[in-house]
Amino acid sequence: MVEARLPTRDGVTAAAKSIASILPPTPLLPVEIGGVTAHVKAENLQPIGAFKIRGGWWRLSNLTEAQRAAGVVAVSSGNHAQGVAWAARRLGIGATIVMPHDAPQVKLDNTRALGAEVVLYQRPGEDRDAVAARLIEERGGVLVHAFGDPWVIEGQGSAGVEIEQQLGREPSRIIACCGGGGLAAGLGLACPGAAIHVVEPEGWDMVGQALAAGKLVQVADPAPATICDALQPNVTKQLNLDLLSGRAEPGVTVSDDEVRHAQRWAYANLRLVIEPGGAAALAAALAGKVSVDESTVIMITGGNADPARFAETIAEQIETNSCN
Amino acid sequence: MVEARLPTRDGVTAAAKSIASILPPTPLLPVEIGGVTAHVKAENLQPIGAFKIRGGWWRLSNLTEAQRAAGVVAVSSGNHAQGVAWAARRLGIGATIVMPHDAPQVKLDNTRALGAEVVLYQRPGEDRDAVAARLIEERGGVLVHAFGDPWVIEGQGSAGVEIEQQLGREPSRIIACCGGGGLAAGLGLACPGAAIHVVEPEGWDMVGQALAAGKLVQVADPAPATICDALQPNVTKQLNLDLLSGRAEPGVTVSDDEVRHAQRWAYANLRLVIEPGGAAALAAALAGKVSVDESTVIMITGGNADPARFAETIAEQIETNSCN
Repeated sequence: MVEARLPTRDGVTAAAKSIASILPPTPLLPVEIGGVTAHVKAENLQPIGAFKIRGGWWRLSNLTEAQRAAGVVAVSSGNHAQGVAWAARRLGIGATIVMPHDAPQVKLDNTRALGAEVVLYQRPGEDRDAVAARLIEERGGVLVHAFGDPWVIEGQGSAGVEIEQQLGREPSRIIACCGGGGLAAGLGLACPGAAIHVVEPEGWDMVGQALAAGKLVQVADPAPATICDALQPNVTKQLNLDLLSGRAEPGVTVSDDEVRHAQRWAYANLRLVIEPGGAAALAAALAGKVSVDESTVIMITGGNADPARFAETIAEQIETNSCN
Repeated sequence: MVEARLPTRDGVTAAAKSIASILPPTPLLPVEIGGVTAHVKAENLQPIGAFKIRGGWWRLSNLTEAQRAAGVVAVSSGNHAQGVAWAARRLGIGATIVMPHDAPQVKLDNTRALGAEVVLYQRPGEDRDAVAARLIEERGGVLVHAFGDPWVIEGQGSAGVEIEQQLGREPSRIIACCGGGGLAAGLGLACPGAAIHVVEPEGWDMVGQALAAGKLVQVADPAPATICDALQPNVTKQLNLDLLSGRAEPGVTVSDDEVRHAQRWAYANLRLVIEPGGAAALAAALAGKVSVDESTVIMITGGNADPARFAETIAEQIETNSCN
C-alpha cells in the first residue's frame, strides 16, 4: 500500500513540530576528531535507542481513523520495529512486526516489551516483504515501510531540524549511517544546504551503488557477512533514490573492524553505547573517509547493542590498523 | 593552603556563567523508573567524562597570576585529576596530580594525555594528602582539593543551575553520588528548594555518618572493598559538613551488586556508559532506596569505566535479587 505522496520540506518541518511535542531533542555533542571539534547527534539516546522513533511516530500519527483501527504491519531488523511499536502503543494502535530470526535478542525483547506482536522470518531465505504482504492480506493493516514511506522519511528528517536549531546554523555536512536511505533522504530535505554523506557496510552499499548507477541496485547474493544488523536491506526504493540522486555525495563504505573501532572509541571518548550499525558514520569519520569541519554532524543512529558482543568489542585491546 | 572563603550561591551562579561560556550543558534525559518519568543529568558526557571538569575549571580560572605561574597540585582517584588537568591545559597552567597506584588505567592514561604530571601513591598505606603537601613544599604550587575547596564546590554546583534551566523549574529532589561531598554541597547551594540525597558505597558512607553524628567521621580501617573507585575519600571536610548539615537528607548506601545492576540497566535503557562510582545515585533510585517523582534529578557523575570490568558487568546475565 504505497502512498502516492512525495515527502516535502514542509512535511519535515511539521514532523519536527509534532515530535518536539512528545520527545525532547536528542543531544548534539561536541566530538574532537583529528584536532577538529565536530558534532555527533546522539539518536541512540532516544527512548527506544534509535532515530526510528521519529518516522514511526510521524507515520502512525497521520493514519486515518479507519487505518488506525486496522492496525499496522512493519518489517524491521529491530529499530524500526521499536519505533513503530512505541508509537503504536502510545496511540493505541495494534502493531505486528516482521523481524529476522537472527535479530539481536535485545531488539526482539524490546519490541515485544512495547506490546507489538513479532513474526519471525528466516534471513537469508525468506522474502521479508512477502511475509508482510501475506500478513496484510490475511489480517488487514497498513504497511509502515522502514525507509520507503513518505511520512517515515519526513519523520527521520526531523533530526535535521533539531540539528540546525542546536547548532545555530545549517550544518555544512551530515554523515549518516545508511540502511535503506530513509534518514539520509529526510536529512536532505531538512537541511538543503548541507552535503549529505551516506555510509554503508562493505558489501551492503546498495544505496551508494544506486547513486553511482542512477538506478536501483541489489545487494549481491549471497551477501557478505556484516556486524551492522541494522543496515541490511537488500535494495533501496525508487522514492529514496529519487530524493538522494544529485543530492547525496558519493557513498562511502566501512569495514566491520572500522565499525568496532568506532564503537570502542565512542565508549572511551563519548561514554556512549552505540550498536554496530549506529556507529557506521562515526567509523567513516574516524577512518578519514569523510573529512569533518566544525559544522559537520555525524549521526549516531542506534544504541541497541547485544551486551555479549558489545562486551567483546570494548574489551578487545588490539586496535585496527586502518584507524587512528 | 585552604582558602578562608565560603562558597556562596552567587559564586555558583558565577561559576555556571563561566562554565556555560566554554562547555555546552550536559543533557538532562528522561528516565522511567517504576512508572514515573524522572530525569538523569548525564555528567558522564562531559569532555573528561565526569562533572569534575566544573570545579577544576572554576578553581583554576580564579587563580591569581602568581598562583598560575606556580602551578597546581591535586589529589584524585582519577576524575578530579582529569578535571584539573583539562582546565590546566586550557589555561596554560602546570599541573601535578597525586593518584593511587591502583586507579583505573583509563583514568591514569587520560590524565597524562591531558598533559598533567602524575605522581602515584600506594592505596592503602600512604597518606595521599601528605604526598601532596610534600610536593608543594618541594616545588611550590596551589593545592586544588577535590571537594573541600570553595571554588570547587561552587563549580560543581553549576550543574544545579543547568538542571533548573533545563527542567524549567527547581527540582524537587537531587540524588547525588557522593565521595567527599563537593557536588552535593554545591547542588545544595544551587537549588535551595531541592531535597539533596547523598549516596555512598556500603562501608564508605562517611558523609552520611558525619551528617548523622554532626561531626567528621573516618571510614573504618581497614575499609571494605568497593568497586566505586571514585567514591573513596576517608573523611569529608568540615566545610562540606557545614554546608550539608541540616541541608542534606539522611545518607543512603548502595552495594556493589546494586551499582553493577545500575550500570547494566543504564547500558540497556539509557545507552550510557557509567563507571561504578557514577552509577551510585541511579543504583539507589532503582533499588527504591530514594523515591523519585517527575521533578527528581539523578546525577550520573562519571563514565570513565575500565573496559574489561565494564564488559564483565554488562555481559553478566544474573540480575541481583535486591533490584527490580
